[in-house]
Amino acid sequence: MIKINEVKKYDGETVEIRGFVKQVRDLKKMQFLVIRDITESVQVTVFKNEENKALNEKIAALTLESSVKVKGKVHVDDFVKLNGVELLAEEVTVANLANNNMPIDLTDFNESNRDLRMDWRFLDLRSREHQLIFRVQTTAEMAMREFWIENGFTEIHSPKLMGNPSESGAELFELNYFGGKAYLAQSPQFYKQMGIAAGFERVFEIGPVFRANKSFTSRHDTEFTSVDCEIAWIDSYEDIMKFEERWIEYLVKRVKEKHGDEIKEVLGREITVPKVPFPRVTMEEAKEIIKSLNYTVPPETKGDLDPTAEKLLGKYFKEKYDSDFVFVTEFPTSIRPFYHMYKEGDPTKTLSFDLLWNGLEVTTGAQREHRFPVIVKQGIEKGLIPANAIDANGEVVRENLPQGLKDYLSCFDYGCPPHGGYGFGLTRMLMNLLGYTNVREVTFIYRGVDRLRP
Amino acid sequence: MIKINEVKKYDGETVEIRGFVKQVRDLKKMQFLVIRDITESVQVTVFKNEENKALNEKIAALTLESSVKVKGKVHVDDFVKLNGVELLAEEVTVANLANNNMPIDLTDFNESNRDLRMDWRFLDLRSREHQLIFRVQTTAEMAMREFWIENGFTEIHSPKLMGNPSESGAELFELNYFGGKAYLAQSPQFYKQMGIAAGFERVFEIGPVFRANKSFTSRHDTEFTSVDCEIAWIDSYEDIMKFEERWIEYLVKRVKEKHGDEIKEVLGREITVPKVPFPRVTMEEAKEIIKSLNYTVPPETKGDLDPTAEKLLGKYFKEKYDSDFVFVTEFPTSIRPFYHMYKEGDPTKTLSFDLLWNGLEVTTGAQREHRFPVIVKQGIEKGLIPANAIDANGEVVRENLPQGLKDYLSCFDYGCPPHGGYGFGLTRMLMNLLGYTNVREVTFIYRGVDRLRP
Repeated sequence: MIKINEVKKYDGETVEIRGFVKQVRDLKKMQFLVIRDITESVQVTVFKNEENKALNEKIAALTLESSVKVKGKVHVDDFVKLNGVELLAEEVTVANLANNNMPIDLTDFNESNRDLRMDWRFLDLRSREHQLIFRVQTTAEMAMREFWIENGFTEIHSPKLMGNPSESGAELFELNYFGGKAYLAQSPQFYKQMGIAAGFERVFEIGPVFRANKSFTSRHDTEFTSVDCEIAWIDSYEDIMKFEERWIEYLVKRVKEKHGDEIKEVLGREITVPKVPFPRVTMEEAKEIIKSLNYTVPPETKGDLDPTAEKLLGKYFKEKYDSDFVFVTEFPTSIRPFYHMYKEGDPTKTLSFDLLWNGLEVTTGAQREHRFPVIVKQGIEKGLIPANAIDANGEVVRENLPQGLKDYLSCFDYGCPPHGGYGFGLTRMLMNLLGYTNVREVTFIYRGVDRLRP
Repeated sequence: MIKINEVKKYDGETVEIRGFVKQVRDLKKMQFLVIRDITESVQVTVFKNEENKALNEKIAALTLESSVKVKGKVHVDDFVKLNGVELLAEEVTVANLANNNMPIDLTDFNESNRDLRMDWRFLDLRSREHQLIFRVQTTAEMAMREFWIENGFTEIHSPKLMGNPSESGAELFELNYFGGKAYLAQSPQFYKQMGIAAGFERVFEIGPVFRANKSFTSRHDTEFTSVDCEIAWIDSYEDIMKFEERWIEYLVKRVKEKHGDEIKEVLGREITVPKVPFPRVTMEEAKEIIKSLNYTVPPETKGDLDPTAEKLLGKYFKEKYDSDFVFVTEFPTSIRPFYHMYKEGDPTKTLSFDLLWNGLEVTTGAQREHRFPVIVKQGIEKGLIPANAIDANGEVVRENLPQGLKDYLSCFDYGCPPHGGYGFGLTRMLMNLLGYTNVREVTFIYRGVDRLRP
């Protein structure tokens, strides 16, 4: 039993392959099949004659997408269009005959038929193009973990069921929990910081998160795979950016090594390993650049960048510094969560960053506030903690901390070291790397407002 | 900045370490600290004198579990009890001063205080014993993935939100989904098979699953990390067992290499790499053995083994074959799901297995039924599919398939190849490997009927 991409090595020998029937051509004197497994496709050739009668009949009855085993002699021949090799079949075993009534066209990946394709996702995924996405994902995730573990990280699996709403309370899924209420985690943020408070020093997690977001855009989903890490004993959020850029460099390098040729062949896309360091630009500088490009960020963003500004910025750094990546730093406090550390001497800015990749945000990161009275104060300023949680001397009044944040805040009451980290969207990485623009295409089984199946 | 387990290499040199304060002894002429990071502990020594006055005061004010940086000269000396090395402190920087009012005793891991320890899990995890569990988990998971990827597997992230109840409908968490209903996945079973139907050939997933189980035992939780894989083109479920035993051999080997000495030192436990193949025994044979040991499985198990029988069987195979593992095969159809393949010629038996490790079940595996009419028939027999879904000629009447199973069953209508797989409990693996008996101890943040926090 060999993989189809190995067939060519066995010229003249009898081998056995397995796969799906992708083409059947039944001619007067010959029959041709195309069989595909996870690696490649190969032509199977059968002469029509008395000796082959049973085999000829079996092939005539084959339907597309049936799974078969084929035993045959390898014949390397440049005249064969498909990779210059064919298998002269001696035996075909039908493992599972497919329904002849195919509900979707397996070669048509248009947007117009996307919803139908998602209904029949297991058939939609049978193409080489689509399988490649998930083989690349496998390599990329493994590379992330290799780099983390090489650098002393511990893997965690944080709970997805929570007794209290996490960060904002908005876009939360709520469920009945033995008569009480539970919530689905929107991010592992609090728990990865708990890992730091537990002395794990460096933690990572790749796992699902849930957002009850009513958007129907090409970028939104209600469940996705979040890639997160957190690092203790940093001196500055610069340490986080330094780590992340090397981590990205490593994962893109591994993807290129393992799939670069195939990505070029199948998707016509060149994978470029990024140069580190990535350029950094403060939000203030970024806005100057955007202004100089004659664009004004609309006021609704409240100090954030909008997608157009992100795209312009991405283009600017590509043209000027030949970089697909740029860190935008020092986001305004007003649009960052209370647990980001504020800039010393300028509490309107946070020690945080977004990473843009081809002008699309892929990461949010920051140094976290680890000083107990300071994080409580920031929570009060954001209206998440009652004002009486700090007394006149600036001391935390522990019994006045809100129930929902008590466990989280207590982490900082017992010597939690300085730390920071970032979150990374797995699908955004794939979209950037492979040139897809809709999250549905790069998610194994997509979940959205109106999609809970298959 | 070095790790504490490297300190000894730097005799006579000045180094900087970081960690938590685990002990403070303030004597007349000397001060001693014990500082611990993720790797080790080290003694820090300071002489009390005029020159050190500021430092002496700082140390006198230190609380346990504060996080500090210490700069000092390494002094290797066999007289120092703790690893024969001390750091003569020159500088101590307090990164975060801990509340002096410690809510739990960080060295007392008794069952009696478990609930309180779980309330303060981030403190409970600061011990070397507990951190070791998760460093072992990290290595074990990485080894699993290495072995899978080496063998051509693709990683998937299957959805945890489902539009229809999965397998049984029992123990399901239900949530409000934009006015409709959704359910939390109890296992990735259907989706990993969808990966096979999608032509991925070999898939794996490590991710959370959810069970609304009201049990309060030492083995039960409402959320845990499930380890799953599925393999296409198998000839028999024997192929699955053959794969799994080599996979376990590999992961135990990696754990022993990386942590064997520390596990022995900290937990007093010898890690033994298992010999493959593991013994196999059919359920019928297993029951004969149990009978010969003068035990009768109570009828409530309906043909399954109860924990006592599993323990006896584990002991028997340990004594007779020196194996910690045994596969019990051919489980009765009556206690297996409808998608397990039945034994040819004996439909009362399934081509399935459980793996016992030290007499505790860690895996359920099986060859799956991939033949469309057969799986529908089995579903009808189990009462999950209406009888009119098969007509008088034995053909599937597709429009009569139940809505909730239609997407799953359709996978077998389009050439899904023969396949099988297994599921593996991550916590059960850790309990067996490290000798813990309560799932709460080996879960990062435990979730149970009455525990949704922290």
